[in-house]
Amino acid sequence: MATPALDLAASSPDLTRALCDIDSVSGNEAPLADAIEAAVRALPHLAVDRIGDTVVARTQLGRDRRVVLAGHIDTVPINGNVPTRNLDVDGEAHIWGRGTVDMKAGVAVQLKLAAELAEPVVDLTWIWYDHEEVGEEQNGLRRLAEERPDLMAGDFAILGEPSNGAIEGGCNGTIRFEVRTRGVRAHSARAWVGHNAIHDAAQVLGVLQAYRPRTIAVEGLDYREGLNAVLISGGVATNVIPDECVVHVNYRFAPSRTLDEAIAHVTELFEGFDVRVVDAAPGARPGLDAPLAKEFIDAVGLVPQPKYGWTDVARFWGLGIPAVNFGPGDPSKAHADDESVPVAQIEAAEASLRTWLSGS
Amino acid sequence: MATPALDLAASSPDLTRALCDIDSVSGNEAPLADAIEAAVRALPHLAVDRIGDTVVARTQLGRDRRVVLAGHIDTVPINGNVPTRNLDVDGEAHIWGRGTVDMKAGVAVQLKLAAELAEPVVDLTWIWYDHEEVGEEQNGLRRLAEERPDLMAGDFAILGEPSNGAIEGGCNGTIRFEVRTRGVRAHSARAWVGHNAIHDAAQVLGVLQAYRPRTIAVEGLDYREGLNAVLISGGVATNVIPDECVVHVNYRFAPSRTLDEAIAHVTELFEGFDVRVVDAAPGARPGLDAPLAKEFIDAVGLVPQPKYGWTDVARFWGLGIPAVNFGPGDPSKAHADDESVPVAQIEAAEASLRTWLSGS
Repeated sequence: MATPALDLAASSPDLTRALCDIDSVSGNEAPLADAIEAAVRALPHLAVDRIGDTVVARTQLGRDRRVVLAGHIDTVPINGNVPTRNLDVDGEAHIWGRGTVDMKAGVAVQLKLAAELAEPVVDLTWIWYDHEEVGEEQNGLRRLAEERPDLMAGDFAILGEPSNGAIEGGCNGTIRFEVRTRGVRAHSARAWVGHNAIHDAAQVLGVLQAYRPRTIAVEGLDYREGLNAVLISGGVATNVIPDECVVHVNYRFAPSRTLDEAIAHVTELFEGFDVRVVDAAPGARPGLDAPLAKEFIDAVGLVPQPKYGWTDVARFWGLGIPAVNFGPGDPSKAHADDESVPVAQIEAAEASLRTWLSGS
Repeated sequence: MATPALDLAASSPDLTRALCDIDSVSGNEAPLADAIEAAVRALPHLAVDRIGDTVVARTQLGRDRRVVLAGHIDTVPINGNVPTRNLDVDGEAHIWGRGTVDMKAGVAVQLKLAAELAEPVVDLTWIWYDHEEVGEEQNGLRRLAEERPDLMAGDFAILGEPSNGAIEGGCNGTIRFEVRTRGVRAHSARAWVGHNAIHDAAQVLGVLQAYRPRTIAVEGLDYREGLNAVLISGGVATNVIPDECVVHVNYRFAPSRTLDEAIAHVTELFEGFDVRVVDAAPGARPGLDAPLAKEFIDAVGLVPQPKYGWTDVARFWGLGIPAVNFGPGDPSKAHADDESVPVAQIEAAEASLRTWLSGS
């Protein structure tokens, strides 16, 4: 199949549509990665590396500071919402379709500026990566951090995830774990022969219900935590005393805690129960006291907010690089079938980044 | 297909094997019902009716009292355990195979005695019915009670369900109901926007855990009750605050309560929650003060026990007929793939019933 050509001189809204109209549902990023690679290899001011379906393009101007700008190129499955179309919402121009919010508008802004900014005031590393919308183990940025951390090196990172144009610093960490109770099966007509594992889960839910999640200030941002059952299941049949009940819990914790501290906290909360961690990712401190972060905030002129959801900024933080989320689009529209991004937000993000990175 | 012939002069163990070797999984009772109908129509002392795949055979001797003996002819699905075989367990002869316990050994005893007892001391009604192992709405005895209650009329009933040769009087009633909590979905990174329905289920499980089931003496038999969650489910995805949790509860209640009283009891226990009754069946009082019940107990020489599980005796009780469970086979082997019945229990049940019904 021929690699579709991307015109990086097009406007960022037009480029958004072009990117969205190339199917790149997770696992099928290759055609879009090919197109991006071909477009940036044509730019003499960028050194380009390709690792799997991740493309890294760097300026090598010898500046004393380097900013990393990253975005994922995959989307959740298309559901009748490609090709994109222009949409007017109360007189405000939008682009409608899968990926417009999460996050090809952000990628479009990055690609346009990557082509344009041959002489930025800091060195730039652009990273467009695959497999963000699926399991942790497939995530392209995770793989890059493991295999080529040198390509991620920098003094500050901006992840183009949708933030409604706001600056969202760092992110909460997240742990998912199962709390399991065990009983003994019996016929429900002779319950006294068995032991009911679902009844024992009353204590587990009691702990969750009584828990008062904290709000913790980290570098001036208030991170709200949360501890919630997200799934519960138990039982064998309608005439059997259940021998197992599993409560699946999600703990979102402020980046002031390490992952180990967070795991210790929930293990203590559910002491005496069988607790199994299913999935865990540390948070990221906002890093807003980093000089480049301060400069970026001043340049954009926005009051930073905390990021409650976990994002790949944590991977930069894991490498010691302060990172923020900054991108066009309303995060609550991500993955929605009526995903659409305001054109003005795309243009504003482009303008803010251009102003800062070009020093104009 | 030719109707298989049943030899009612064979021994009850041989007849058990013959019955088991005719597949009559629920829904496929017709060949066995045909065989039973043909065999009993050949007996001049019985008046025979056929309703669907239920066969009713009655003596009409003008006795002042009538005993009803009933058994279902269907089985749960065969799982490599037909044809039957003889099995020796620690020197004790068994018949192994699907239906041996539940409940073709009981039916074999009934068929043999139906053929033999042309001059019983009481009038006899034999009922062999279909669809016991499936949904309530298909149950052949339920249909008979609705369509032809006159054929079920009598002063005392014996259901041949396996009871290990003991007399088990009446049965507990059973209700299954769902207790539902409702919340509001939200992303689990912003839990405060939603409301967690699984957490609210803590109260529901708390009620169940705190509940002390009663033991209620009814006509000298101690019925143990039980209130148990049998299933629980809730949750949408591992990153979503759940908007619904459903606890499926089974209440087994002594036959001293009516169905309405039992429903009122659980509705009161879970006041303020959304309670939906899924399935409900009243219990059956043991009726052991009925003269015929007393005579039967004396003749068999056993101390009656309460029946905790629900059985079709409740349908007789619903028509005002006292009824007990009495049959060969260990109920805990019912539906097991290694279902097997001790030959001695078949012969003992046959002997007890013969002695009493023939007045010898």
